[in-house]
Amino acid sequence: MADVKNQPPRLTSKGQATRARILGVAADLILKRGVVGTQIDDVRRAAEVSGSQMTHYFKDKRALVKDVIAWQAQATLDNHTQPELGHLDSFASLRLWAHLVTERQKQVGLEGGCQFGSLAGQLVESDAETRADLAAGFERWLELFRKGLLAMRDRGDLRREADPEALAYALLGALQGGMLLAQTLRRIEPLRDALDAAVTHVESFAADTADAADVV
Amino acid sequence: MADVKNQPPRLTSKGQATRARILGVAADLILKRGVVGTQIDDVRRAAEVSGSQMTHYFKDKRALVKDVIAWQAQATLDNHTQPELGHLDSFASLRLWAHLVTERQKQVGLEGGCQFGSLAGQLVESDAETRADLAAGFERWLELFRKGLLAMRDRGDLRREADPEALAYALLGALQGGMLLAQTLRRIEPLRDALDAAVTHVESFAADTADAADVV
Repeated sequence: MADVKNQPPRLTSKGQATRARILGVAADLILKRGVVGTQIDDVRRAAEVSGSQMTHYFKDKRALVKDVIAWQAQATLDNHTQPELGHLDSFASLRLWAHLVTERQKQVGLEGGCQFGSLAGQLVESDAETRADLAAGFERWLELFRKGLLAMRDRGDLRREADPEALAYALLGALQGGMLLAQTLRRIEPLRDALDAAVTHVESFAADTADAADVV
Repeated sequence: MADVKNQPPRLTSKGQATRARILGVAADLILKRGVVGTQIDDVRRAAEVSGSQMTHYFKDKRALVKDVIAWQAQATLDNHTQPELGHLDSFASLRLWAHLVTERQKQVGLEGGCQFGSLAGQLVESDAETRADLAAGFERWLELFRKGLLAMRDRGDLRREADPEALAYALLGALQGGMLLAQTLRRIEPLRDALDAAVTHVESFAADTADAADVV
């Protein structure tokens, strides 16, 4: 993840904190009002920084939006690389992942949905460069799943015909769609059940080591 | 679907066409610029109608947004109630549904995603009333799947333990999440594979009529 130029190395820790505060405020405003409805001056006021501070961290609105996307993508990936989840390379860790995602949404009262997914939904049709930034975020996230699933197949936990790419799409798709439904309907079941279906689908490719004759 | 006050009965067919044109233009602008970034006057100009015409059809921006949501929900439901899909109450019709959804996205060059889902993503956190309007749209859509799946279970196509509610969430979740990924990554596989996983999951509950002893 060293390829993401998300934290300019020259910033002091205080500078990094200020930059992070501005990004958080900007993400929040964009999610509520859209990019067109969010002016850089609104962000500046809400983050309580001066105009020269804003310019110091973000040369213009485009740069701010780009950094909000990268920052949100990183925060989402950090959520998925907690020690308890390991490398998402076992049936147990995928079940735990689904459980933690669901519990976290309950804790926030089902508001906000997946922050990165919401940003993507807001911004995907705004311009080609922004779409490419969002795509890069999803690619990194998909890569986490792909790598874990590939390890499971190499290890023999998954049968040979399991397609790590296709299963990664199913898992992240269920998360994104389940989040949107849960967020809109303000109940947890759509997220819980969509994730359960996707993880159960992955489990259906489990190698039957107990009875190898059943494995095609 | 007679409960949706989507087409005021007093409009002439010309009036209905004008109203539909305004709604289409408004939906498009909202998806591109967000609600805050879309002024009623932008919609009026883009739809090439007069101010008095706008006021005749939509008393204010809130009314316009509400009607855009209901109109888009109806359009989405219409797409799902084509004769070829039947009542989405067989394994074959669910497979066909997944195929048609995927083909349609290919045809539009993966742009725009699911129009209703995109609207939901844009507007869900804007205010409680708008969220409720969006939820009503999703509920009607989920009801289509639930009814079809329930019929399949009653008929004995699905085993008793199949949960039509949970499977409906899995299908619509896969559609919404797969759409967002395909739209952002500009490739069809995420949608195709997420839908395939969800439909395969439904199929895993197929009653084994050939060998009833295997059914729990």
